Amino acid sequence: MEYLQQTFSVKFEYKVFFTSGLFELSNTCIDDFLLDNATSESVKKILFVIDQDVMKATPGLADKIRRYFSIHTGAQLIPDLILVPGGEGVKNNEDNFHNLLDTINKYGIDRHSYVAAIGGGSVLDMAGYAAAIAHRGIKHIRIPTTVLAQDDSGVGVKNGINFFGKKNFLGTFAPPVAVFNDDRFLLTLGDRDWRSGIAEAIKVSLIKDPEFFEWLEQNAGALTNRDMDAMRYMIKRCAELHLNHIASGDPFEKGSSRPLDFGHWSAHKLEQLTNFAVLHGEAVAMGIALDTVYSNLAGHLSTEETKRAIALIKKIGFEITHPLLEVSSADSPILVGLNEFREHLGGQLTIMLLKKIGEGFEVHDIDSSILKNAGEALKNHYAALNPA
Amino acid sequence: MEYLQQTFSVKFEYKVFFTSGLFELSNTCIDDFLLDNATSESVKKILFVIDQDVMKATPGLADKIRRYFSIHTGAQLIPDLILVPGGEGVKNNEDNFHNLLDTINKYGIDRHSYVAAIGGGSVLDMAGYAAAIAHRGIKHIRIPTTVLAQDDSGVGVKNGINFFGKKNFLGTFAPPVAVFNDDRFLLTLGDRDWRSGIAEAIKVSLIKDPEFFEWLEQNAGALTNRDMDAMRYMIKRCAELHLNHIASGDPFEKGSSRPLDFGHWSAHKLEQLTNFAVLHGEAVAMGIALDTVYSNLAGHLSTEETKRAIALIKKIGFEITHPLLEVSSADSPILVGLNEFREHLGGQLTIMLLKKIGEGFEVHDIDSSILKNAGEALKNHYAALNPA
Repeated sequence: MEYLQQTFSVKFEYKVFFTSGLFELSNTCIDDFLLDNATSESVKKILFVIDQDVMKATPGLADKIRRYFSIHTGAQLIPDLILVPGGEGVKNNEDNFHNLLDTINKYGIDRHSYVAAIGGGSVLDMAGYAAAIAHRGIKHIRIPTTVLAQDDSGVGVKNGINFFGKKNFLGTFAPPVAVFNDDRFLLTLGDRDWRSGIAEAIKVSLIKDPEFFEWLEQNAGALTNRDMDAMRYMIKRCAELHLNHIASGDPFEKGSSRPLDFGHWSAHKLEQLTNFAVLHGEAVAMGIALDTVYSNLAGHLSTEETKRAIALIKKIGFEITHPLLEVSSADSPILVGLNEFREHLGGQLTIMLLKKIGEGFEVHDIDSSILKNAGEALKNHYAALNPA
Repeated sequence: MEYLQQTFSVKFEYKVFFTSGLFELSNTCIDDFLLDNATSESVKKILFVIDQDVMKATPGLADKIRRYFSIHTGAQLIPDLILVPGGEGVKNNEDNFHNLLDTINKYGIDRHSYVAAIGGGSVLDMAGYAAAIAHRGIKHIRIPTTVLAQDDSGVGVKNGINFFGKKNFLGTFAPPVAVFNDDRFLLTLGDRDWRSGIAEAIKVSLIKDPEFFEWLEQNAGALTNRDMDAMRYMIKRCAELHLNHIASGDPFEKGSSRPLDFGHWSAHKLEQLTNFAVLHGEAVAMGIALDTVYSNLAGHLSTEETKRAIALIKKIGFEITHPLLEVSSADSPILVGLNEFREHLGGQLTIMLLKKIGEGFEVHDIDSSILKNAGEALKNHYAALNPA
């Protein structure tokens, strides 16, 4: 067979910066980045998309941004700051996405200019998707404001919106040009949002890093008491493990493996069924608990380590189970969710379980009777367990 | 400044196959590819999107495809073959794009399955874009049916649709998983479409390959007489130079350089102003002629080589100039087009000119008085030139 072989690699690089008070005039972090990053002699514009709840919780934010870019010259600020709703809603309502494309067009934002998004993971997902497809890719800056977005979703390479009622039906793999994690935004979070992002740290420690798991055990109290030093360390280490995983694996997920989705298959279904009343991190905590106990009952993980994992989840303040996660019949929602996940992966299931704390492995089958037992064990035995 | 550095490379590989009668039962080219390429144990589906003009010009195509996949098992054919209009219209009317997304959803086409497009460059662009964003990227197979798509646009990494009245306002860089160039489709082309794709071969020879230019000079007669051996050689060599350029340069065009766009800045404007009555290749031929004579008048290219280039363009049967390409005042369409191109690049112009046949170089300014003279020289002196 006659053919020409095409082979090339594309290198992607970006920094995740950790700072405090990103738009204080004396903080040159983002301006230095913009000056260093310029890929053209021409004027670079920057368009901000901001979660309206973050705007409300951060008095003076708009003025600060405008003043910052009137002094610093790394990019020319588009004075229109685009406000969007936060949470999953911003990805469900196509209007937000179309309005952003309109604005990109109206202000002539080009491939050397920036779309910067300030908000939680959903806002970053929507804005990142619009940036990725306009002009085949405008530079995208992420400024995550929640623990979850700073330690996990905001530092990765995916974006997307919901379509046909399906989560992330439309989206791309498109790394940002930079991420700025500003710890001051964390001060505006309510306790549920503060806690929610800790679930991803527990997740990544369980599958990748036993020392980080021990650190989480030792610092669970500090984290729930909103100790900023502990939270800063946790976010940085979790982000680092997340970044390393992406770089060392299959960044654009060409295969079927989704190690970072440990505990997520049931969590996605739970979020959807509760119409996102259960937060992502809360659902992930329950999903981790389920897959951890499943690992134990299937004979892979010791009972002692299982207890330690569940105790940590409880100590952070998470629920470990939910009626919707219980198997009561063949058409229980969780079994429906398992099938949907199989379809999403293209017909073959790949699910991560635990061998020990800090080491995951993959299976291609889930036994529904073990799953039923795991749900019952969480509801009965583990619910009574006293956090260490 | 505290930060984490993220760095990774993503490798992209695909083959451009050359074949004849892709859906003949005895031709295992595409089936072999599908069997080798499988990334999951699960059933792979394949959805075809077909240019309705190609369907009309190729009696029995639908039956052939259905019969082929009833015998060969590399993928499960979605029996619905999606017909779309050809030409720029398919990228202008959003309905085509939305219908395709609907179909992808309806048939559960996943990331291990395929969207295969049969048609000219516009159909491939639209289908490639839909495939690139659904589920963050379904595998895309291109089956280009025109000379232009087989030697240039169909073998590259870009896709897109027009939006806000702007060409390719939405799109991504997303390599196909395979390209199948079937020479039988070329037999269905009218003379204008047959000729049009030769412009890209002249272009790439002028900026990259003096030997290929000489081959084109020697074989111009055979090409215009629709000699299939000559056309097959031309397509393969042009595709090869195009692929090599992408692989050795900046595949996802992060910088400002667009060497393969030699002659294209004015061509785009001419296509748009004539509402695509002038075909892409016809416009590119005039754009090449203009930038070649400009290179000569600006003192970069010898008069002898300029004459050879113009003679080749004429010998293939192209017009070398158009009233809309002439500079008559400061607001002549071509000067407006130059400004639009500058904006498209982000404010700084980068245009390729010729130093000699087979060697291009870039400039950042175009002198409008030299451009005026180049237009006049093409209209007067070169129009009278007898092709060698």
